[in-house]
Amino acid sequence: MDIPAKLASLGLVLPPAAKPIASYVPAVRAGNLIYVSGQLPWRDGKLLAVGKVPSAISIELAQQAAAQCAVLGLSAAGGLLNGDWDQLLGVVRVGVFVQSDDTFSEQSKVANGASDLLQQVMGEAGRHSRAAVGVNALPLNSAVEVEFVLAVR
Amino acid sequence: MDIPAKLASLGLVLPPAAKPIASYVPAVRAGNLIYVSGQLPWRDGKLLAVGKVPSAISIELAQQAAAQCAVLGLSAAGGLLNGDWDQLLGVVRVGVFVQSDDTFSEQSKVANGASDLLQQVMGEAGRHSRAAVGVNALPLNSAVEVEFVLAVR
Amino acid sequence: MDIPAKLASLGLVLPPAAKPIASYVPAVRAGNLIYVSGQLPWRDGKLLAVGKVPSAISIELAQQAAAQCAVLGLSAAGGLLNGDWDQLLGVVRVGVFVQSDDTFSEQSKVANGASDLLQQVMGEAGRHSRAAVGVNALPLNSAVEVEFVLAVR
Repeated sequence: MDIPAKLASLGLVLPPAAKPIASYVPAVRAGNLIYVSGQLPWRDGKLLAVGKVPSAISIELAQQAAAQCAVLGLSAAGGLLNGDWDQLLGVVRVGVFVQSDDTFSEQSKVANGASDLLQQVMGEAGRHSRAAVGVNALPLNSAVEVEFVLAVR
Repeated sequence: MDIPAKLASLGLVLPPAAKPIASYVPAVRAGNLIYVSGQLPWRDGKLLAVGKVPSAISIELAQQAAAQCAVLGLSAAGGLLNGDWDQLLGVVRVGVFVQSDDTFSEQSKVANGASDLLQQVMGEAGRHSRAAVGVNALPLNSAVEVEFVLAVR
Repeated sequence: MDIPAKLASLGLVLPPAAKPIASYVPAVRAGNLIYVSGQLPWRDGKLLAVGKVPSAISIELAQQAAAQCAVLGLSAAGGLLNGDWDQLLGVVRVGVFVQSDDTFSEQSKVANGASDLLQQVMGEAGRHSRAAVGVNALPLNSAVEVEFVLAVR
């Protein structure tokens, strides 16, 4: 699975894997699973979307931010695999947290930003189980945070 | 483990597994684990409980909704197993999200609706680890969402 | 890995594993993983921190509470292992829920309380993937809840 090439074909760049911050790491392998830490939608040193959906951030922008979290999640996994993408078998679980106004109920639409990206990049192997929920607050006031469990050979 | 028969003995019907919506699927197998997507309390085409607990939804109704999520989670697993319930060994983890008023602190009681159902149906094998939290918003304004990790042979 | 001795060297006591409450259990083993239930910051029969961060609970106190959740999570795992700590290989994932005011965005700092404790006690093996989010409500009005996935041989 040539993830960087597929991303490039979609006009997306695989960013370098984020460096470990504090006492946790971007991704950990346990047997045939990779657990990827909750990703915030960093791009060019800034968060793509800050604040609550939809009062501060539109659903569309939140979807783009969720997609960026997915790209960064792949990057974190790639870092752990030292770029050996052939080990990557697929996506097992995606957990999506959307910073939501109290009356917002379209977290699934926002989460589709991440889910669609994974399927575009990985095809069938990108299909996953998912939990998408709203929360009232996220780190750095990010509009979304997405974590992943991936399957590896 | 004859899950459908046990459910029937409790007066419960195993609904058909939900069809894949968007880019995620009801359940994914990874080795000896099945990850089941976050379930909303659908029954007869409607959500059993909509709004925040307890201002809009009583604890009792939220418990029933959580139990229905557990039934639907089993159904999703059964779909993945093509009905071969003998493969199912037990429940590993249950994650419960309760749409909560800011001052509500009895998420554990609501979550017991799902936990008790699983133990009624599966006995010892239904005992699981659990995380139950409150959130300010859920998809489709559902009062509860519950996800599962199951063990299979 | 002599977890009790290491905790003692840090001036910390490994409390007895919490007894099963309701229909869930403190920890479940699945293959080479242990899933530990969401831990609340109990100490001497009381929660260390109750209410929202930071209006009711300071970041510093919430960090200490998160660290206590980590100690209790280790205790739950130790109970499942019957004290055979040599089976414990490391920490795979930590999920941190911080009861947050709507404008609080430093959940990562709070979560570091748990992450730092695990690394102090377990060294490299304690480095983990992590998801830290804010929520508007938690069981028993706890300020934090932390769950764990551990790797065992």
